[in-house]
Amino acid sequence: MKNGTGPKLVDPMEDPLPGVGTYEDFNTIDWVREKSRDRDRHREITKKSRQSTVALLRSVSDAFSGWLLMLLVGLMAGALAGGIDIAAHWLTDLKEGVCLVGFWFNHEHCCWTSNETTFQERDRCPQWQTWAQLIAGQSEGVFAYIVNYLMYLFWALIFSLLAVTLVRAFAPYACGSGIPEIKTILSGFIIRGYLGKWTLITKTITLVLAVSSGLSLGKEGPLVHVACCCANILCHLFTKYRKNEAKRREVLSAAAAVGVSVAFGAPIGGVLFSLEEVSYYFPLKTLWRSFFAALVAAFTLRSINPFGNSRLVLFYVEFHAPWHLVELAPFILLGIFGGLWGALFIRANIAWCRRRKTTRLGHYPVLEVLVVTAITAVIAFPNSYTRMSGSELISELFNDCSLLDSSQLCGYKQNAVGDSLADRPAGPGLYTALWQLALALVFKMSITVITFGMKVPSGLFIPSMAVGAIAGRLLGVGMEQLAYYNHDWFIFKGWCSPGADCITPGLYAMVGAAACLGGVTRMTVSLVVIMFELTGGLEYIVPLMAATMTSKWVADAFGREGIYEAHIRLNGYPFLEAKEEFEHNSLAVDVMRPRRSDPPLAMLTQDSMTLGEVESTHYSGFPVVVSSESQRLVGFVFRRDLLISIDNARKRQEGVVSASRVVFTEHAPSQPPEAPPPLRLRGIMDLSPFTVTDHTAMDITVDIFRKLGLRQCLVTHNGRLLGIITKKDILKHMAQIANRDPDSILFN
Amino acid sequence: MKNGTGPKLVDPMEDPLPGVGTYEDFNTIDWVREKSRDRDRHREITKKSRQSTVALLRSVSDAFSGWLLMLLVGLMAGALAGGIDIAAHWLTDLKEGVCLVGFWFNHEHCCWTSNETTFQERDRCPQWQTWAQLIAGQSEGVFAYIVNYLMYLFWALIFSLLAVTLVRAFAPYACGSGIPEIKTILSGFIIRGYLGKWTLITKTITLVLAVSSGLSLGKEGPLVHVACCCANILCHLFTKYRKNEAKRREVLSAAAAVGVSVAFGAPIGGVLFSLEEVSYYFPLKTLWRSFFAALVAAFTLRSINPFGNSRLVLFYVEFHAPWHLVELAPFILLGIFGGLWGALFIRANIAWCRRRKTTRLGHYPVLEVLVVTAITAVIAFPNSYTRMSGSELISELFNDCSLLDSSQLCGYKQNAVGDSLADRPAGPGLYTALWQLALALVFKMSITVITFGMKVPSGLFIPSMAVGAIAGRLLGVGMEQLAYYNHDWFIFKGWCSPGADCITPGLYAMVGAAACLGGVTRMTVSLVVIMFELTGGLEYIVPLMAATMTSKWVADAFGREGIYEAHIRLNGYPFLEAKEEFEHNSLAVDVMRPRRSDPPLAMLTQDSMTLGEVESTHYSGFPVVVSSESQRLVGFVFRRDLLISIDNARKRQEGVVSASRVVFTEHAPSQPPEAPPPLRLRGIMDLSPFTVTDHTAMDITVDIFRKLGLRQCLVTHNGRLLGIITKKDILKHMAQIANRDPDSILFN
Repeated sequence: MKNGTGPKLVDPMEDPLPGVGTYEDFNTIDWVREKSRDRDRHREITKKSRQSTVALLRSVSDAFSGWLLMLLVGLMAGALAGGIDIAAHWLTDLKEGVCLVGFWFNHEHCCWTSNETTFQERDRCPQWQTWAQLIAGQSEGVFAYIVNYLMYLFWALIFSLLAVTLVRAFAPYACGSGIPEIKTILSGFIIRGYLGKWTLITKTITLVLAVSSGLSLGKEGPLVHVACCCANILCHLFTKYRKNEAKRREVLSAAAAVGVSVAFGAPIGGVLFSLEEVSYYFPLKTLWRSFFAALVAAFTLRSINPFGNSRLVLFYVEFHAPWHLVELAPFILLGIFGGLWGALFIRANIAWCRRRKTTRLGHYPVLEVLVVTAITAVIAFPNSYTRMSGSELISELFNDCSLLDSSQLCGYKQNAVGDSLADRPAGPGLYTALWQLALALVFKMSITVITFGMKVPSGLFIPSMAVGAIAGRLLGVGMEQLAYYNHDWFIFKGWCSPGADCITPGLYAMVGAAACLGGVTRMTVSLVVIMFELTGGLEYIVPLMAATMTSKWVADAFGREGIYEAHIRLNGYPFLEAKEEFEHNSLAVDVMRPRRSDPPLAMLTQDSMTLGEVESTHYSGFPVVVSSESQRLVGFVFRRDLLISIDNARKRQEGVVSASRVVFTEHAPSQPPEAPPPLRLRGIMDLSPFTVTDHTAMDITVDIFRKLGLRQCLVTHNGRLLGIITKKDILKHMAQIANRDPDSILFN
Repeated sequence: MKNGTGPKLVDPMEDPLPGVGTYEDFNTIDWVREKSRDRDRHREITKKSRQSTVALLRSVSDAFSGWLLMLLVGLMAGALAGGIDIAAHWLTDLKEGVCLVGFWFNHEHCCWTSNETTFQERDRCPQWQTWAQLIAGQSEGVFAYIVNYLMYLFWALIFSLLAVTLVRAFAPYACGSGIPEIKTILSGFIIRGYLGKWTLITKTITLVLAVSSGLSLGKEGPLVHVACCCANILCHLFTKYRKNEAKRREVLSAAAAVGVSVAFGAPIGGVLFSLEEVSYYFPLKTLWRSFFAALVAAFTLRSINPFGNSRLVLFYVEFHAPWHLVELAPFILLGIFGGLWGALFIRANIAWCRRRKTTRLGHYPVLEVLVVTAITAVIAFPNSYTRMSGSELISELFNDCSLLDSSQLCGYKQNAVGDSLADRPAGPGLYTALWQLALALVFKMSITVITFGMKVPSGLFIPSMAVGAIAGRLLGVGMEQLAYYNHDWFIFKGWCSPGADCITPGLYAMVGAAACLGGVTRMTVSLVVIMFELTGGLEYIVPLMAATMTSKWVADAFGREGIYEAHIRLNGYPFLEAKEEFEHNSLAVDVMRPRRSDPPLAMLTQDSMTLGEVESTHYSGFPVVVSSESQRLVGFVFRRDLLISIDNARKRQEGVVSASRVVFTEHAPSQPPEAPPPLRLRGIMDLSPFTVTDHTAMDITVDIFRKLGLRQCLVTHNGRLLGIITKKDILKHMAQIANRDPDSILFN
């Protein structure tokens, strides 16, 4: 009686058939079934381990396989991220010139090998030749500029063409950031091939190309996809994870943490990102393992040392001056800007993507990529802040000016005192920089809207952060000049005396970046922790928190969805958001099928239907009842399992005909002797289907679906079966409440 | 039909009566009911907010009340923690002497005001007089030593006597660390007064006294209790939180984070501690708010500046030398030590506490405290490492020796080279220190076992960390000397040349502290993150992680419970551990009541029972069925709600007698005209009770209980009601499987 299948009978269905209990593509898994299967497997191993030493060893290796897998995922993702960094760096520089010592050196590397360069001019060395020098033999003048311009455009087009062609040819799933799909997969959806080896290879290569093409996109989001592909592929090494969809999703959650960990060098932030943003089922065991994997990956990346500075983090920042309470006002202002931009960006981007889906625009993805690349390259080249890569731009904006700094952004007038850290008046260099930055801001804000969603790998983190960092730096320099010229204003009095260093424009850039990223993705804790890991001090956590909180509140006022949820909805994936509360006060009876006007619910009886009757039905699953009069529920059967079993019985059993009775009871009912032998299918029936009563409030039902990861739930009234609610029904109902098209939910 | 109570009838039960839906002391709450009540309330406010501006403002203030509450909790807990730190510091020093300038100055403070002290002798100044100087006029010699010894003993006894008397007189709940009870409360249990104002006041005062008495206990665990008391008291300011047990537990989860945040100055670690160790229901919204509250508290504490060094963290450490891969071996060794000590400590402490509960020992709590204090003081005084407070000891052990350091632990022989950071041979001072440390280790290990669990506030963090830090430092110095004398050994070759600084004993102490704390509490991520926040660098996270992981594995091999879970079990609280997997393959039918030999399940019928029959039952809740023949389930009623309603009906309604029919249907059934009018109680019936089938595996059932926070669940077979499973039944079943006494689960 223990295993729920009744006393042992000679039943061909006792041993699970291949295929029974698996899922079709674009379908939702049943978490409860997967988890209970894993527990059965674990119980089996534990039981055996008491019998022999070999079995004990197998049990120990089974217990540690999770850790081993995490180690491998960390190593592989770290190594790939290092490779991507190095390759992208090299290709980006290739747009501007080539190294004569070896074409495989990037600009920085090329000049390291040269001894002639001084510290000031470390980016100029004879070994590195711009295309104008190489082709036309000139390094200055209009002609050289045009040659460089054209070569820049040429390479950008080549890279983006390669990227989009490779994506279309080998792995259409490699495009985009991948985070919306990974969120959906983690919530229990199946998209075969989305995390496969072809996607991994294609995404890795095309990501490098896309980033190098100068498009307004980042590699941070796609790195999460790359890490998840690694994890999925490595899962195949271990039966425990290969065969169980729930266990595999635990590993994928950890891989998402790994992705962010290598993207920003922030392992703790990565784990919190996975917990807050992408994961659905995140037990504490996964938290600990994710942390381990994220650390392994971060240290692997550091030992590869792609930035050549032994730093773990992407943007290392060190500020010297503390901030003052008065500055919270501009920080909150940045938060409002971030929130507004986030909300606006999501609307504009979704509108554009919808247009791409519904109009002829979507038929020419290659052309679209080429046109956008051309526009980007043509506009970006003349402005040095848009010409440089997004991460370089952010680095420069976060940077605090020291006295020796020769960059335009630090073009302050030198004071006689020579105190490098004091506030100084802006010089002409800085004014030029501010103009260029303002133009770059407008450009980045508009081009990103049409870039995100094209058929190339594209992340949103860097472009959003760049927008925020530019806005923040502009505001920061403005505040600094305001303070310099108005030391005696009451708001500056007491903390900002002349000759003191009171305002750090780099900090404003950082706060702005956090605010914009927060507005677009609606991340909160993980965002603050990632930023905290960049600076390594608790000092600046309050400004970051104030800006992120404001940004989230402002953006939420315009719509509660982040960009990833918006894209999930655009694609019609069946994703039940865990963060959103179900506000409406409907009951289970209002959502269940059949509706009042529909034909009655299709159900099977436990011992009175024939094979022919069973096969003629066409839903994806059926409740089994005692009899159609009493409607008392016995269990639930999936159509897929039913068909596989019948098919198998036809092949292996004698006398299975359409008139055979299908029996779900423990003991076969008595039959007339001339009748064909009954087909016994109790083994494939779920004996513990979930039920709620018709009076159950939908908020409770939604909670049950989310927390237990259900696929469907049966509805009863006073003990009689009344209807069924699937995840899709809930999503349709939610869409209806929000005045959206319920048919936008495409999958089960 | 919408609100589940049927068409409106003149029904006295429509408006909830005071008392209906509340819980008795030492009972478990129904999370689903609480959460759905909060959603109803929220829906009501949202609906009203569309009608008038006042209601809109109320809705906005309702939305922000959570944040305001968090701010207040952070401020209050931070301020209290600061006060506790200052008072404990002062009282601890009072055991040794007094400040002549003002008796309210502690030793350090006293000598700050003096100008005569130099940097070297900053702890010696004429204003600070030891008791020997004050009483006997002597500062040296045997007599002075004895006077100091006796005064130390005297104060220790006074403090501990005061502490235990206050606890017994005002708030018995103030004793212990409070974390086991808070875990239980957060899981949905009710212990009235555990988080009340008397507990808060008493705990704050007695915590200072207990820490100052020199007992082997810390203030970090109790700070979590203090923070939770603050949160619970502040909840009374907001109806939203006062009236809803589930919402209040969200705030308490955040308060647990605040407690750790102020204890260690580690806000992120605190949030993870709450998530990993104490919380039960931790939605993402709580994560974000906890983080906010933890930050506010940390900054409040810093602005109070109790340590006088503007540091946020309790033990600020800065190491200079990197660690080498070879050192992982000793780190793992420390992990094994930590795990063994953790497992041993838990067993010994639980055995001792059980003895206290069952023998006459428990009848003399005051005497017990006094005896233990006397033993502690007598043994601790002669050894300077046990005489100093636990946190001072840990600080000193974590410290990296600089050249100027004059402490015994840095008593190395001076090299001619004068390179302060190189490894040096141990001098006589260091050898003395090592002996003293070894004795201190044995003493701390044994005295902590009998100290934890006495009737005074006592935390375990500091004593466990102290044990680990001593062991780590000993091993660290050993390794250092080994490396110094054997530079040419193959294991040191290549990374540890003569004159180099290769081994940092302070790091070993830190790793040891983490390992021991991990062994005792089984914390993982939060522990590593707290330690990471102490050092502020990712550099040392790998040693910490290796040691913590090893420690957890080793300790788990001896028993999967941490000290808090062990104490929960000792007290018989109904706590369903979320981390432990349910391994046994029993079914719901094996756990449910009634068992096979029991009388049938007590149930009510929906329209055929009289008041007299209903009142004569004695379970705490009843399923309501259509009729006792069909056993088809309609709903569930709590006895408490039933009795309150009947009582109320007797007072307010005419003609309610024992022969009145109790009716749970929508429409009253037809009755003979002479019968008394029926009592209609549909309003108090839960129309959506949870059900599982008899074939449901218990692991799934346990999962449902945990994730939804159920109190009970009904069991059906083919649509007929069969039995009931309560949380207590599950815990009893689990106890039985583990060969423990099922009657050790005391509460519902």
